[in-house]
Amino acid sequence: MNAPHDLPGLAQRLGLTREPLPASRKAYVTGSRPDLRVPQRDIQLTNGELVSVYDTSGPYTDPEADIDVRRGLPSVRAGWIAERGDSEVYAGRQRQAMDDGGKARDGEHIAAIREQAAGLQRQPRRAKAGANVSQMHYARRGIVTPEMEYVALRENGRREWMAEYLTDAERERRRRGNPMGAHIPDLITPEFVRDEVARGRAIIPANINHPEVEPMAIGRNFRVKINANIGNSAVTSSIEEEVDKLVWAIRWGADNVMDLSTGRDIHTTRDWILRNSPVPIGTVPIYQALEKVGGIAEDLTWEIFRDTLIEQAEQGVDYFTIHAGVRLPFVPMTVNRRTGIVSRGGSIMAKWCIAHHRESFLYEHFEDICEIMKAYDVAFSLGDGLRPGCASDANDEAQFAELRTLGELTQIAWKHDVQTMIEGPGHVPMHMIQANMDEQLKHCHEAPFYTLGPLTIDIAPGYDHIASAIGAAMIGWMGTAMLCYVTPKEHLGLPDREDVKQGIIAYKIAAHAADVAKGHPAARARDDAISKARFEFRWTDQFNLGLDPDTAREFHDETLPKDASKVAHFCSMCGPKFCSMKITQEVRDYAAAQQQADAGMAQKSAEFKAAGGELYIPIAKG
Amino acid sequence: MNAPHDLPGLAQRLGLTREPLPASRKAYVTGSRPDLRVPQRDIQLTNGELVSVYDTSGPYTDPEADIDVRRGLPSVRAGWIAERGDSEVYAGRQRQAMDDGGKARDGEHIAAIREQAAGLQRQPRRAKAGANVSQMHYARRGIVTPEMEYVALRENGRREWMAEYLTDAERERRRRGNPMGAHIPDLITPEFVRDEVARGRAIIPANINHPEVEPMAIGRNFRVKINANIGNSAVTSSIEEEVDKLVWAIRWGADNVMDLSTGRDIHTTRDWILRNSPVPIGTVPIYQALEKVGGIAEDLTWEIFRDTLIEQAEQGVDYFTIHAGVRLPFVPMTVNRRTGIVSRGGSIMAKWCIAHHRESFLYEHFEDICEIMKAYDVAFSLGDGLRPGCASDANDEAQFAELRTLGELTQIAWKHDVQTMIEGPGHVPMHMIQANMDEQLKHCHEAPFYTLGPLTIDIAPGYDHIASAIGAAMIGWMGTAMLCYVTPKEHLGLPDREDVKQGIIAYKIAAHAADVAKGHPAARARDDAISKARFEFRWTDQFNLGLDPDTAREFHDETLPKDASKVAHFCSMCGPKFCSMKITQEVRDYAAAQQQADAGMAQKSAEFKAAGGELYIPIAKG
Repeated sequence: MNAPHDLPGLAQRLGLTREPLPASRKAYVTGSRPDLRVPQRDIQLTNGELVSVYDTSGPYTDPEADIDVRRGLPSVRAGWIAERGDSEVYAGRQRQAMDDGGKARDGEHIAAIREQAAGLQRQPRRAKAGANVSQMHYARRGIVTPEMEYVALRENGRREWMAEYLTDAERERRRRGNPMGAHIPDLITPEFVRDEVARGRAIIPANINHPEVEPMAIGRNFRVKINANIGNSAVTSSIEEEVDKLVWAIRWGADNVMDLSTGRDIHTTRDWILRNSPVPIGTVPIYQALEKVGGIAEDLTWEIFRDTLIEQAEQGVDYFTIHAGVRLPFVPMTVNRRTGIVSRGGSIMAKWCIAHHRESFLYEHFEDICEIMKAYDVAFSLGDGLRPGCASDANDEAQFAELRTLGELTQIAWKHDVQTMIEGPGHVPMHMIQANMDEQLKHCHEAPFYTLGPLTIDIAPGYDHIASAIGAAMIGWMGTAMLCYVTPKEHLGLPDREDVKQGIIAYKIAAHAADVAKGHPAARARDDAISKARFEFRWTDQFNLGLDPDTAREFHDETLPKDASKVAHFCSMCGPKFCSMKITQEVRDYAAAQQQADAGMAQKSAEFKAAGGELYIPIAKG
Repeated sequence: MNAPHDLPGLAQRLGLTREPLPASRKAYVTGSRPDLRVPQRDIQLTNGELVSVYDTSGPYTDPEADIDVRRGLPSVRAGWIAERGDSEVYAGRQRQAMDDGGKARDGEHIAAIREQAAGLQRQPRRAKAGANVSQMHYARRGIVTPEMEYVALRENGRREWMAEYLTDAERERRRRGNPMGAHIPDLITPEFVRDEVARGRAIIPANINHPEVEPMAIGRNFRVKINANIGNSAVTSSIEEEVDKLVWAIRWGADNVMDLSTGRDIHTTRDWILRNSPVPIGTVPIYQALEKVGGIAEDLTWEIFRDTLIEQAEQGVDYFTIHAGVRLPFVPMTVNRRTGIVSRGGSIMAKWCIAHHRESFLYEHFEDICEIMKAYDVAFSLGDGLRPGCASDANDEAQFAELRTLGELTQIAWKHDVQTMIEGPGHVPMHMIQANMDEQLKHCHEAPFYTLGPLTIDIAPGYDHIASAIGAAMIGWMGTAMLCYVTPKEHLGLPDREDVKQGIIAYKIAAHAADVAKGHPAARARDDAISKARFEFRWTDQFNLGLDPDTAREFHDETLPKDASKVAHFCSMCGPKFCSMKITQEVRDYAAAQQQADAGMAQKSAEFKAAGGELYIPIAKG
């Protein structure tokens, strides 16, 4: 850790996270063309069954993949992008010294870190003059892209493993959710994906300069996704740590990663992350723009910001958080708040607005921004710069004024066929969450909602991943498409590797709870599989079907360390003598025997049995 | 740890948890009589303010308290119980060898452990012939007991510290919750407590043989409470560890503790726990009864069970989980479940019923049980022996058949003026939680609901405290009065000290989130205080106002270890150069300056300002 650019050290650490998860094997489902191969994670159970789950971990967990972080990942989409014929390779923007930090920098240092990223340089691609390369543009023209087909196959998962569950009764049991207005079909078709993207109800973040991305969708009619933030800062962290965090984050299930770097080496860090990321990468370009003007918000200009957008679009960033809803008239609405403006981007723009007595340049240049977005297919993540920073500021005038503006901007973005999602709070007590979803749906026309938590209380520093997972699960159920994680370090410090994992697992729980509540067809099958394993004392399967097999096994070993316990028909809670699950089996045997004995009494009406008048006869559940 | 009865070792470990929480001081609010002293925890802030919070930690965190675990805690209620004149000391049940485990035991071992508990023996007390000593009985006769006044003072907290918040506007902001049918007054009076207890909507678990207890209430119109389970088992753990866990659990906020011991030394463990516990202790008597019959469920008899109830009532257990709703006709309803019967007590009774072809002896002897309960004021916790063990079994016929029976039993208990609460699940996906609360309210007549989680998904072994905190927060908001914690070790092993803490903090989060959502008058004040500290960069106050100051400080130190950072006006997220909270202060200064400048323009209408047409004028929030 003391040698910030120690590549062998990094490779070694990356090597640690290249092992597949326990009992898991990377499998690929091939689509309508041979170069369309969708990854799944197949979990081999001890009873011979196979369970297949959504896999975000990319080639890193494929032992056959040849990974070299200095060369970057192989391309998934380069052929698809090229064959569309609507984009071209070009020279690209001239690199500048300030790209890696605004201050006068040690030239030698910059040269050294850039050299390490030399193998990751690609010539950028952009739309030909007059063309629009966004997935939304294709969708609206009726074109089903390979990206859309990829998403469809990925969302469906491997349906064979669910075959035994897919009797009508089982499907009914699993599906009796409350979709809260979502409409998730049993089978996701490429055409369905196209339709959702065309309507703006889903986005596929996929910059044409990020061909390494494994396409995924964010929308209320797909699985709820999660985002993990990484990024260096002025105070701590190094490039290697950030790439390592990326690989670690996707291993545990991050569907998207945002690079929120604010400190030195910001451009080069992004090269490393993008070229090595199979998941979409989002950024907040104003952070880098601020670095370029030495951290002085009022020195920001549209020109510097525009240049930064192009710089990052050329590198392949898949979505930009743009705080264009922080309008000048809204800034004074925050004055009486308990915690004012807590969004970094929001406060930068607020400061700029009041310093210049002017409307935000992001708002005024919004159509200019759209022109850039559609030339690379960068999606908008319209930032909630005025989100509440505590319970007492939730759902206030400033927050909702901004949200309505984001709805207006969505309409403008859609006019340009630019993919758009909307960021949401933040800090919201449970009883005020539904209003956030309602207002968003109402004003933002079902553009995907992407919330940070929300945190339901303010008094849990050190545990805000839990305080916010509660709100995240609820708002996910209500229709939020992606949940931005919160780590245990929130409000306290920068997350390390373990914090990243803790945040991700908490958010996988929230997202899965939302999918189950919505009645997503594939979600409950995994719960049912693990519950069956639990009931049958298949301990190893129980660990491996969980979100974190390593921790589950470790916890079990703390109480019953012997290998024999993994097949023991008892657990540490009750001990070998008495076991409630064992007794249930006896109840079943008993009931079965009674049923046989009572076969001659079949004339008795079912109603009489159901009333409990007759004992020991198993009553089938509805 | 290797010397299971090493008293100095225990004392040393207990000594570790006797320190007050950081910046905290134990304070007592005196009621209408000098022996009625209600503990509070006063947190001294760095800005001179004092914040006072509900305190479950008992005398352990009072440096002036003289603690000797071999003598037990001083009595809180002995005088109140004696002066009522309706109970008497008596010889009590004869102690039996099998009380500490049913098997042939090492007599020397039993003698040794009992000797250690010798200083904890008390002569039991019970109601005089024909008398009823339950708080519900007094309440229904219009008597406000000292216990009720104690509860009122405790629930209110120290209202002075909230004085500055108690302007009408602030109260309104804090209180704009959605009570979901609760009716929580601004000021809890002793008469209000009496009324709630009389109606059965709240209970005060307080066995007359547990005079050490600091009275507390469980009811939907009071703060949401949490319960922590401890207990030895056949496989692991020792007495000392259990007492240590008790002190540790109440330090972090457990309002109640259940002793779920199932292994050896079960009677003596209970002596230790009860005599050293300032919080109500609950048990599941069938566990001990089963030990007495060598673990063979079908050998259980009413006589052995009855004897066990008396044994435990004499020791001072405050509430009994009784699975009297597991009726013979309901057992076959579980046959087609994915995970059958997962409650230990439920499966014991199911096995007994099918083995004997008979209705449960708990159900048939329910009125006999009531006679015991009212002689000591033991409260019922009517167990949900048929609760679902996985999402796919949630809200099924078996579960709700039992719930309706618990409602019938509640009416019988209330006929005897026996305090009663109802246990609930378990494993319930989010969209099925409301139905649990609705059914419980409907069939159980607002008797307090006491749920285990519920867990919203099944795939999070190792993180079930999080998966269940989501469900717990939601059902707490809906009206559940007490939340039984789940630790990270759920489904995997027995919780250790750290697991107990993790489970408790997760549940303090859930309970507080519920209180905030319900609009509890005292809840949001703490959030507001910590948010203010956060905004003003009072780091130390932010740590100390949180649920776990130690962890918050530790996390902060990992990134910014220097003491100077505790007063720094920046945090590790943005660094010293740029800080969104600092910018907010600039926005305020700016707005204030603009307001002065614009003072001459006062003729402009407020409506015009609110519309955002005029800039820089702070708009007061509604």
